[in-house]
Amino acid sequence: MKDLNGLFEHFLRDIYYAEKQIKKTLPKMAEKAGADELKTAFEDHLKETEEQISNLEKVFEKCGLEAKEEKCEAIEGIIKEGEEIMKEAEDGDTLDAGLIAAAQAVEHYEISRYGTLISWARQLGKDECADILEKSLDQEYGADRKLSSMAEKQLNKEAA
Amino acid sequence: MKDLNGLFEHFLRDIYYAEKQIKKTLPKMAEKAGADELKTAFEDHLKETEEQISNLEKVFEKCGLEAKEEKCEAIEGIIKEGEEIMKEAEDGDTLDAGLIAAAQAVEHYEISRYGTLISWARQLGKDECADILEKSLDQEYGADRKLSSMAEKQLNKEAA
Repeated sequence: MKDLNGLFEHFLRDIYYAEKQIKKTLPKMAEKAGADELKTAFEDHLKETEEQISNLEKVFEKCGLEAKEEKCEAIEGIIKEGEEIMKEAEDGDTLDAGLIAAAQAVEHYEISRYGTLISWARQLGKDECADILEKSLDQEYGADRKLSSMAEKQLNKEAA
Repeated sequence: MKDLNGLFEHFLRDIYYAEKQIKKTLPKMAEKAGADELKTAFEDHLKETEEQISNLEKVFEKCGLEAKEEKCEAIEGIIKEGEEIMKEAEDGDTLDAGLIAAAQAVEHYEISRYGTLISWARQLGKDECADILEKSLDQEYGADRKLSSMAEKQLNKEAA
């Protein structure tokens, strides 16, 4: 992480690790989700996550870098908290509320990391890489908005 | 975390821990920052973090809960990565770019957690608590926007 190229490489490997962990976790979340809409949202986001992994592999290739993961402790912590919720929540609505919250923490972590990577890629003149990463960022924003609207619906259901 | 009240309490203690860790870390980040504007941004955000801690204490009180911290592994991971950057980055611009990225990951974690807490507080009929937490959320959004604009300026400086 000595220079901006080093930072870019480090953050790329960090988000590559994170996406692979998310890919492992989403099927468990889909299985646990009570509401059908939430189950489908997790299944859809699994497909997007697979695309994002392949987008990262394209970026590694374009930069002449080996697609290598670097352990990301932030995502480990976020996922661990999601797993605790899956173990402890007792009724369906509580579990779904907790799953939405856990997933939104994941989305926000990714939004911040992709935002940074895109800005650095442009700074380093890697515009093609920035364009690929923009696609993943748009998907993360979309997933976060969908989760917010589901949380809102749950709120209105309870209020009714 | 059995019901929504339990989830709310758990997440409140988690963000309380996170804010206290951030309070310890910001002075180190301000000291390391090269650009004066970034140094000032971290110093200003330290003051906001102190307000946010006191906001959380008000929420604990209003809910009849003891203001207790619960270890939050996500924020530990995010801060640890920021500390690695502070140790390893060699030139000033790289260090500042890394500090901005680390701070934005912190902001996004907080944005997701405050967003969730506000939605749950409203669901639980704790509107006064939700209003207090909204103030902290607005500050986090403001801090994130400020950091994005500083990253943008750095980008334009390099391009010039």
